[in-house]
Amino acid sequence: MNSVGASASTGAAAGGARTREDVVLAASRLFAKRGYHGTSMRDLGEELGMLGSSIYSHVRGKNELLVEVIGRGAAFFNGVVAEAKRSEGTAVDRLQQMVSGHVHVVIGHIDESRTFLFESRFLPEADRQKIIEMRDAYEKAYRETIRDGIDEGSLAAGVDPGITAIFILSVLNALIRWYRPSGDRDADQIAAEMWSFIAGGIVVGEPDG
Amino acid sequence: MNSVGASASTGAAAGGARTREDVVLAASRLFAKRGYHGTSMRDLGEELGMLGSSIYSHVRGKNELLVEVIGRGAAFFNGVVAEAKRSEGTAVDRLQQMVSGHVHVVIGHIDESRTFLFESRFLPEADRQKIIEMRDAYEKAYRETIRDGIDEGSLAAGVDPGITAIFILSVLNALIRWYRPSGDRDADQIAAEMWSFIAGGIVVGEPDG
Repeated sequence: MNSVGASASTGAAAGGARTREDVVLAASRLFAKRGYHGTSMRDLGEELGMLGSSIYSHVRGKNELLVEVIGRGAAFFNGVVAEAKRSEGTAVDRLQQMVSGHVHVVIGHIDESRTFLFESRFLPEADRQKIIEMRDAYEKAYRETIRDGIDEGSLAAGVDPGITAIFILSVLNALIRWYRPSGDRDADQIAAEMWSFIAGGIVVGEPDG
Repeated sequence: MNSVGASASTGAAAGGARTREDVVLAASRLFAKRGYHGTSMRDLGEELGMLGSSIYSHVRGKNELLVEVIGRGAAFFNGVVAEAKRSEGTAVDRLQQMVSGHVHVVIGHIDESRTFLFESRFLPEADRQKIIEMRDAYEKAYRETIRDGIDEGSLAAGVDPGITAIFILSVLNALIRWYRPSGDRDADQIAAEMWSFIAGGIVVGEPDG
């Protein structure tokens, strides 16, 4: 009941009591829609129904918001890989889990994903470097899981882990460009069709890899 | 011996006699490397060893060069699809031909491909519309060839032509982002590994599609 009390006491008509979390979520939406450079503190204020200047009681500036939104995006993607690593399944199971998890992050957290994928170049240099390292580690997790699958015999011996990781990530990374929430497929269906394409290909009777 | 004579009479130190073709090729290189907005007529002049103002004896402006370079890129990609349509092979043969042809265009004409893929948004509106239509037709050619393959029984019945065309084009379109001329694979090898991934997938014994 706390939030109801807070809302009543500050007045919803005046925008209610906006928290730092509200500011970060609004920044996610606007960065995803208009890009980092297309979003001003004034735009953020309008989105939140508060004065641009009051936002500074929550954050030091737009740059802090970019670091935070992209950090959240990175944490979602990292979480998928970490969970797959903890799983007891075969390498193929883990690979499927990683593909499906990526699809669910993009679709379930589309604003953070979009900002992470398209606006990272505008981060301060040290943060930008961390994101580059994180992306390298992400690709490495795919390479290693593919190598495990070849070793256990469930992935075709002719598969090259490096280029195959790139092919899989190409399919995954394109999702945010073509996915429309108004489309007729949900995340589960897209993940299933994507995995079917990656695992089995499309040609009848074609040898794997 | 003509070119030697021409070079001697105009003086190589002054840049020789530059043709319109030289200007277009230099524009391809610079647009690909620095982007359309990152390239000035002065940069072009330096690249060609001629005064920026003399370029105007060949072209009306930078915009005309963008239209021309992107038109060449589009023609290369369209040529691949047109050739596959004329071929007598099965739908699967034609699909493989389209994938391989795309890889060879990107690698063999990397400057025009990069400009086509990344700078089209800066075209004048009417030209931009034509490129959007061309891309739609390109995707449609993939959808139709996949549908033909399902009809002839060589592609798995469970394959959806629309989403599968998107998956294949995702793999193809990412090539220009990761390909390095200094890498250890040539266009034939990349095309073969890409086709193997698309046709057969990677999991041993996984049903197609």
